[in-house]
Amino acid sequence: MDMKSQYKGVIDLNCDLGESFGRYTLGDDTAMMELITSANVACGFHAGDPVVMQRTVSLAIAHGINIGAHPGYPDLQGFGRRTLSMTQEELRAMILYQLGALQSFARTIGVPLRHVKPHGALYNTAARDERVAEAIAQAVLDFDPSLMLLTLPGSALAQAARALGLRVIKEGFADRTYQADGTLVPRSHPNALITDAATVAARAVRMVTQHKVTAVTGEEISMQVETLCVHGDTPDAMGITQAVRQALEGTGVRIIPLGR
Amino acid sequence: MDMKSQYKGVIDLNCDLGESFGRYTLGDDTAMMELITSANVACGFHAGDPVVMQRTVSLAIAHGINIGAHPGYPDLQGFGRRTLSMTQEELRAMILYQLGALQSFARTIGVPLRHVKPHGALYNTAARDERVAEAIAQAVLDFDPSLMLLTLPGSALAQAARALGLRVIKEGFADRTYQADGTLVPRSHPNALITDAATVAARAVRMVTQHKVTAVTGEEISMQVETLCVHGDTPDAMGITQAVRQALEGTGVRIIPLGR
Amino acid sequence: MDMKSQYKGVIDLNCDLGESFGRYTLGDDTAMMELITSANVACGFHAGDPVVMQRTVSLAIAHGINIGAHPGYPDLQGFGRRTLSMTQEELRAMILYQLGALQSFARTIGVPLRHVKPHGALYNTAARDERVAEAIAQAVLDFDPSLMLLTLPGSALAQAARALGLRVIKEGFADRTYQADGTLVPRSHPNALITDAATVAARAVRMVTQHKVTAVTGEEISMQVETLCVHGDTPDAMGITQAVRQALEGTGVRIIPLGR
Amino acid sequence: MDMKSQYKGVIDLNCDLGESFGRYTLGDDTAMMELITSANVACGFHAGDPVVMQRTVSLAIAHGINIGAHPGYPDLQGFGRRTLSMTQEELRAMILYQLGALQSFARTIGVPLRHVKPHGALYNTAARDERVAEAIAQAVLDFDPSLMLLTLPGSALAQAARALGLRVIKEGFADRTYQADGTLVPRSHPNALITDAATVAARAVRMVTQHKVTAVTGEEISMQVETLCVHGDTPDAMGITQAVRQALEGTGVRIIPLGR
Repeated sequence: MDMKSQYKGVIDLNCDLGESFGRYTLGDDTAMMELITSANVACGFHAGDPVVMQRTVSLAIAHGINIGAHPGYPDLQGFGRRTLSMTQEELRAMILYQLGALQSFARTIGVPLRHVKPHGALYNTAARDERVAEAIAQAVLDFDPSLMLLTLPGSALAQAARALGLRVIKEGFADRTYQADGTLVPRSHPNALITDAATVAARAVRMVTQHKVTAVTGEEISMQVETLCVHGDTPDAMGITQAVRQALEGTGVRIIPLGR
Repeated sequence: MDMKSQYKGVIDLNCDLGESFGRYTLGDDTAMMELITSANVACGFHAGDPVVMQRTVSLAIAHGINIGAHPGYPDLQGFGRRTLSMTQEELRAMILYQLGALQSFARTIGVPLRHVKPHGALYNTAARDERVAEAIAQAVLDFDPSLMLLTLPGSALAQAARALGLRVIKEGFADRTYQADGTLVPRSHPNALITDAATVAARAVRMVTQHKVTAVTGEEISMQVETLCVHGDTPDAMGITQAVRQALEGTGVRIIPLGR
Repeated sequence: MDMKSQYKGVIDLNCDLGESFGRYTLGDDTAMMELITSANVACGFHAGDPVVMQRTVSLAIAHGINIGAHPGYPDLQGFGRRTLSMTQEELRAMILYQLGALQSFARTIGVPLRHVKPHGALYNTAARDERVAEAIAQAVLDFDPSLMLLTLPGSALAQAARALGLRVIKEGFADRTYQADGTLVPRSHPNALITDAATVAARAVRMVTQHKVTAVTGEEISMQVETLCVHGDTPDAMGITQAVRQALEGTGVRIIPLGR
Repeated sequence: MDMKSQYKGVIDLNCDLGESFGRYTLGDDTAMMELITSANVACGFHAGDPVVMQRTVSLAIAHGINIGAHPGYPDLQGFGRRTLSMTQEELRAMILYQLGALQSFARTIGVPLRHVKPHGALYNTAARDERVAEAIAQAVLDFDPSLMLLTLPGSALAQAARALGLRVIKEGFADRTYQADGTLVPRSHPNALITDAATVAARAVRMVTQHKVTAVTGEEISMQVETLCVHGDTPDAMGITQAVRQALEGTGVRIIPLGR
């Protein structure tokens, strides 16, 4: 009997980590790493500093989870959530810089980077702007064509990455609301975030097992995902993530790192 | 017959490059690359930005010269010439970050980093402060033990690097004055820089062929060097460097990249 | 007899100055101050640092020219020429911060700030985006309602500033090309800048004495201006500015600081 | 009968506030403002951003407490706790820049800055380095000679400020340990901070009413202070500060803002 047949599906749980900076602590990375399978590590532009990066990579290795790069706009004050108009040359070089910086900490310890996920405004801009998407995909390809690229299904970045032969990983957000077209409701909207643990968990289960999610405007939309993003910097982040894990496992979903 | 016997010695000429930033241009990197054999490329902390780094690495490759990392303190306003008190953990992580960032541009094109040379205040502090020297040497070792480390002969960094088994390259400065103990006269002193091309060239020849230099206080001091640093951001930088090259070659010194 | 009747008009010549940063020098501020009547001093966000600001203010006072603030986006790498999406609260606070910082150097010497001119992408965004325009105008009003605000005639910023009772100064660009709607051709276009001194001078004279300029697409457009912007960071900046001055004065136009 | 005779002394309670930055929150400024009489507001270099500054000043005004500037080294990653070697010109300009930036938010609302207190490494360096002390005192004098300058009693900054005629306020630290010479035990030492509320409160009372404190090495040292610093970013900051307040008031010490 095939072991996999027992499972209702497999999913990766990813979380943005290493977003502390100097004296400032954000989230509880150690606790979160107990619950997830892939860490998106900030690279010093929107968050993170070299010491934080070093510690986050070490911590992720100790937890046996995947390490990926989480590059963002050079905007610490805005936490990478403000779009900056950049040329393709600037974008590509900025991504290469951040990937290399993070890689340095991973290679020192002897583990590979597994994936790349753009942060915040860069993620959102790359989802709809082909020019930005191309620059990011090209940088990832040039850096290491074996890296998986996490994006919103159907996004410009997904298209640009596939066109270059990169492996695209479709990402869902359990605690964010969606618009009817499958894009995320912007954070500036009051109902962008879902904070009730049970609701988030139920949405996660539905996305993973039924490949569906209800848009903020009520429509049922298709949502095929290979990884689910959970957030570590919201109130009760741990409670929500634990609820998601338990609900998924209780339904028979296996939670394993991408590509393993 | 041994070809090398025709030569009065061999020397590498290194120069700090890629120190432009955004709208700001510093030095004429293209012209300088015609004259030198090793480029120390700024890594975005004291100078350089990702686009400048990308272009500088491409340019160096086109000129067939060695590419090395030139990490500095995180202080663009002070151009890395102001000492910042940092812990060893901060120093090591800061060096790893910068090495990785630069590496990213080199590996994308398929060339290796050959050497590391700390910049400005970091170079000077590492020459006399064992704690700083150790952190830098450890970072270089952890990143890539085959990297050559350029330092002042007899410096704390030379000792720390050798203790870790790194290959240390002894560096001389043709256009800087020395104190009797072999350390550089600080830039804040009026006679720290020599700006007369013929004088600089004569000192270069003497260092390379006779292994001696005259200190600012008149003493003859021993100065065994494997690479000479020339500067690209001084007035008549090209004229001085051309004079150095011609004088060396006229004396029968061969100018070749380190480790080749 | 009215002295003014001898003149074909009066105009102020303004220039962005104090845009050096640390080791990086941009433009020849001392030479430019001989030729202009109003200095727009960078405030440390897109260019300038505290030492540069101190020196620029001192220099401007020594030349007897008006000192104004030239606030920009917090983006040194992009020289303030990249738009950053910011909330109105962020914009207003950012402007207040920069105005206060510059004011500090002016008040120390006992001279007032006379005007404000947003820089680069902030200038352009404020010309068309009411939300950005309002935030800037509100900050200027809150800081000092007697400050003159330099803007593109007909811009959103001109409207927002007038609505708040601020004194708006209509600005023309002698060395930039215009679109048929009176907005500037973006710098990314190849013909955005005019570099021929005689052409720039002739356009300046025409704008000041006939209140007209020819758009890049050939149309004659009306262009009422009270100040002309000249640039200090282009090749032959001095030659162009001297040509503008001579052409204006030769035509009988009086060049005097705004508000005097 | 003299009302003051009822009191065992008067003291100001000051706290470093406005040290959040962008997405990062540090301390609970609103709660702390209920307990203190003077706010030292970060100015954007070691902590704080324009929006945080605006909000902190508004909050301080609403609480009726004194607003002072808390300038620091340009080092967000190090939270201003790392010394940076700077020239006197750089130091003076850096202080003027930060004072002006903060002043902008205070003047917009119509309240004055009352005092200046350097932050972290700048405070400590100014306590022992005459050159740094002079540059800071000169900047404060040039900016506004009526500003009070908070320093360690007997420090180089106290001397430099008095020599220029500034009003010096002697500051004590209830939750930091002292060395026998009256300087603070550096934060890098394990016993630099006292975290027991009752102990901190008892030390505060003793400093204010008996003008004495016990050094970390056991000596009784004289400690005349006009303001006590409490910290908002330590665990149980509120509990400690409440204990200090209650102990002081219970002893008959009046807690009022400086200069009122």
